[in-house]
Amino acid sequence: MILDKVENTNDLKKLTISEMTELAEEMRELIIKKVNTTGGHMGPNLGIVEATIAMHYVFNSPKDKIVFDVSHQCYPHKILTGRKEGFTKPEFYNKYTGYTAPEESEHDLFKVGHTSTSVSLATGVAKARDLKGEKHNVIALIGDGSLTGGEALEGLNNAAVLNSNIIIIVNDNDMSIAENHGGIYANLKLLRDTKGQAETNFFKTLGFDYKYIDEGHNIEKLIELFQQVKDVDHPVIIHMHTIKGKGLKIAEQEKEAFHWILPGTLDAKDNSTTCETEDYNTITTKYLYEKAQNDNKVIVVNPATPGVHGFSPEYRKKLGKQYLDVGIAEEHAVATVSAMAKAGAKPILAIMSSFIQRTYDQLSQDLCLNNSPATILVYWGAISNGDATHLGSYDIPMISNIPNLVYLAPTSKEEYLHMLDWSIEQTSHPVAIRVPSEPMISTGIEDESNYSILNKYKVETQGDTVAIIGLGNFFWLGQKVCEQLKKQLGVNATLINPKFVTGIDQELLEDLKKNHKLVITLEDGQLDGGFGEKITRFYGTSDIKVKNYGADKEFTDRIPLEELYKRYHLTPELIVEDIKTILG
Amino acid sequence: MILDKVENTNDLKKLTISEMTELAEEMRELIIKKVNTTGGHMGPNLGIVEATIAMHYVFNSPKDKIVFDVSHQCYPHKILTGRKEGFTKPEFYNKYTGYTAPEESEHDLFKVGHTSTSVSLATGVAKARDLKGEKHNVIALIGDGSLTGGEALEGLNNAAVLNSNIIIIVNDNDMSIAENHGGIYANLKLLRDTKGQAETNFFKTLGFDYKYIDEGHNIEKLIELFQQVKDVDHPVIIHMHTIKGKGLKIAEQEKEAFHWILPGTLDAKDNSTTCETEDYNTITTKYLYEKAQNDNKVIVVNPATPGVHGFSPEYRKKLGKQYLDVGIAEEHAVATVSAMAKAGAKPILAIMSSFIQRTYDQLSQDLCLNNSPATILVYWGAISNGDATHLGSYDIPMISNIPNLVYLAPTSKEEYLHMLDWSIEQTSHPVAIRVPSEPMISTGIEDESNYSILNKYKVETQGDTVAIIGLGNFFWLGQKVCEQLKKQLGVNATLINPKFVTGIDQELLEDLKKNHKLVITLEDGQLDGGFGEKITRFYGTSDIKVKNYGADKEFTDRIPLEELYKRYHLTPELIVEDIKTILG
Repeated sequence: MILDKVENTNDLKKLTISEMTELAEEMRELIIKKVNTTGGHMGPNLGIVEATIAMHYVFNSPKDKIVFDVSHQCYPHKILTGRKEGFTKPEFYNKYTGYTAPEESEHDLFKVGHTSTSVSLATGVAKARDLKGEKHNVIALIGDGSLTGGEALEGLNNAAVLNSNIIIIVNDNDMSIAENHGGIYANLKLLRDTKGQAETNFFKTLGFDYKYIDEGHNIEKLIELFQQVKDVDHPVIIHMHTIKGKGLKIAEQEKEAFHWILPGTLDAKDNSTTCETEDYNTITTKYLYEKAQNDNKVIVVNPATPGVHGFSPEYRKKLGKQYLDVGIAEEHAVATVSAMAKAGAKPILAIMSSFIQRTYDQLSQDLCLNNSPATILVYWGAISNGDATHLGSYDIPMISNIPNLVYLAPTSKEEYLHMLDWSIEQTSHPVAIRVPSEPMISTGIEDESNYSILNKYKVETQGDTVAIIGLGNFFWLGQKVCEQLKKQLGVNATLINPKFVTGIDQELLEDLKKNHKLVITLEDGQLDGGFGEKITRFYGTSDIKVKNYGADKEFTDRIPLEELYKRYHLTPELIVEDIKTILG
Repeated sequence: MILDKVENTNDLKKLTISEMTELAEEMRELIIKKVNTTGGHMGPNLGIVEATIAMHYVFNSPKDKIVFDVSHQCYPHKILTGRKEGFTKPEFYNKYTGYTAPEESEHDLFKVGHTSTSVSLATGVAKARDLKGEKHNVIALIGDGSLTGGEALEGLNNAAVLNSNIIIIVNDNDMSIAENHGGIYANLKLLRDTKGQAETNFFKTLGFDYKYIDEGHNIEKLIELFQQVKDVDHPVIIHMHTIKGKGLKIAEQEKEAFHWILPGTLDAKDNSTTCETEDYNTITTKYLYEKAQNDNKVIVVNPATPGVHGFSPEYRKKLGKQYLDVGIAEEHAVATVSAMAKAGAKPILAIMSSFIQRTYDQLSQDLCLNNSPATILVYWGAISNGDATHLGSYDIPMISNIPNLVYLAPTSKEEYLHMLDWSIEQTSHPVAIRVPSEPMISTGIEDESNYSILNKYKVETQGDTVAIIGLGNFFWLGQKVCEQLKKQLGVNATLINPKFVTGIDQELLEDLKKNHKLVITLEDGQLDGGFGEKITRFYGTSDIKVKNYGADKEFTDRIPLEELYKRYHLTPELIVEDIKTILG
């Protein structure tokens, strides 16, 4: 194998073109095998193998600085920069993160996992270089899907006037996670169709020097072009046409399905998942479809992550004009649903906890200040074992301290659907709903609450001495704590489902003072700035003691949930131990 | 006066061109007089008089929907939509807000005060119209300065593919608040120079139909063009060339100084403010200049609000390459300083509390996850009597719950400069500093703290029974509370300057338990998600009582500080009354 000769980028520079072409095939095979074993980003990595080889052949990383956008296409880069064991040896498959990580290698500049950041970051690196009087290349590698994010567009506008070396490689595979959306993509197509010759050129209007390469999998031609722009003294765009999923037939055909795959996807006989069992995705899509059928003002909006929410290509087609993918443009998504709601439509925005972080100001100014009755479904909001770049612990502190917003935390299918229906039909408040974590829990009991009466908590079991307020996902943890308290201490604790993240049920909390000594809050997210602290503040000058449970303020990185729960005392056993100590 | 005949937009439609031209002059005079009396946005409003008249002549608001970007150019609109008394009668000068406000008029769609939102909002309004099967025009009016904000660019990319009526008027006066920055502006210049004929056209690359009008102050030509695009069935850009400050010579000449003015600016004999007295702006600019002189790695970065921070045109020129205005692009600003710091430069980003809201995800992912040692100066973070769109109460909840960040709250000149110097020179943490409110307080005592020891609070006065933790601006309120406690109750309270917003001094707080019954926290911002709640959580299971003081979670709108302080119990008298009650 050629790869046996390549430990790092210096070894790569000794290879011939034909050896590198062979190397590309070896790397591709490794990536397919590894990703099919562990799960991960398939299409983006297969599409960038040749370009990565050519980049490392021409440029001298780490002296030259390569900034990856999203960095879910960094697997070939990792193979070439001392981390090939993570792909050749199954026992090391999980050693390295799926994103660039400076702690792993000096070739990785930033920890990145959100899209559209590379141009701004590269511009900063270049500016620092210029201030220090150093000489080296700064390269940003950004996919066409990421181009439409506000941060990328702001970055391009500024990179264009840098007046010194910056090379922005636009990896154009004509795909976002799903298909692209927005005016810029017609221009990219025109440029591809004309091999970069069209007069109408988005990048040139910003002032960039522009070079097009159609054969983004031809190592020789890539090297030739990269050598041309190496050490360039001004901002240049390389518009590079590649094929997402290149070299794996099914990934080339089913680009959306093979953007990111679950372990074993290639081995499954039938890739169409025939889901008989209900989960929060299936009940949401079913509910929204029926709603849309009966009301032409209903519209489902999503910023480029349809797969996460179960919005399959067929589903999107069925919704027709009542489905809108705005591309990677979270700020626009929140602003535009705010306006839709204000103008009498009934928009439902589906977005991940980690990506709603893009929209604090739009939530505050466009949505909440205008009290627009839009509905936002926040997915994957929970303490997670995920990568540091995609954690779901921060949405409560981020969202719930914004005035006017009603943030709801359902605990079951019945509650969730009832809240969703209430939200869509009411016209008084901006509403966000934290979609519960799987597995779905169905109580079989219809929820008949009137959520227009804000901040009304529900007492599930009336007890004394200890009250457990279990928010959303952690209501069920609260129930277990109650059982343990009964068993171990003979305490009949009160169990409360607060439902509202954004407010306090003063009457109920006041009432607890009568025959409770301790209030426990449980939330599936960060404590700092979260829900529990508001309860604690309420009781600050009373005799009631309060203990808040949730996550510490920290970035965690692929730490097993079990370990995190232990760290944060989020098991019934540990909580009951604490309660024993507090009650003395 | 023509204006006597015009109560609303229907009256306007009866006027001749020459009457409208006369009306424009009348309106201009009223605006100049009013703004010079109350202070406010001068240049933007003078530049848009004719276009506003023409818009209201051609379109039928409120059936046709006009969305203003930032809306600091809505004064002519207010005059024509039933609110002229706010400009003709001095007693009503302060009746109406300086921004669009739906509660004032059905002609105002949204409460707006941050830039770059109009296109996304208008797109949402248009989409709702299409879902409902209605017919009317949707118009967004956006200035060239606002175009570079991520939300605007995301909006343009989506508006371009709306496939139905939307008219985006780009009011191009070749200025942001200060001069423009970014690649797009060379293209706007080219388009102005060629009267819209240049092949290289940013808007056309996104797929927009495009029309240029050079004479943006010619009512007849404006009407003609607006009539051409009225009821258009696809997205169209009107690129309109106007003059900022039009009709007021000094405002046309000194565009930056007359963007927004203080009351009486026109009457002042000499507009050059010869500031002998120190304030936080002057000490900051002086310090940063000296720092930059001695270290070429130091760079001051600002997103288009130099005036707020005292970065005058002369000052910017003096800093040369060590000053970077990124235009209205807050996300880019945070990302790019993160990268600069990571690459060994020493960036200092100056930004307003209200506008840092644009950057939650960049703070989290680009800055804090990467632990980049950049410095962010947050200005105007305080409870304020300002407009609902520019409040400074939210930066603590927004910023301080992000992992890894060190948010410092100095209380005096000496502390502030020492923190700033520490932050610039250290390389371990992302640091934000909340620039204190004016008037500047100088203690004359040199600050020798080592801020590398994180979360170390300072006990200013050691006492007992009651401990007052006064954060930043409100340290001095804490001092007054202590004095009153001594006087009224004979209590020698402990006074603490916490300095760190983002962490708890556990040792000190633990120590307080020995001889204190009550801890008071004071913060100049929103309580929910803020600093005080973290202290309360710490004491949740102890016998110490805690009372948090700060602002309620709400949007306030031009409410006098005195009233807000009363509402939130933020006077020494009210706090001492509360303490008496709590101590019993």
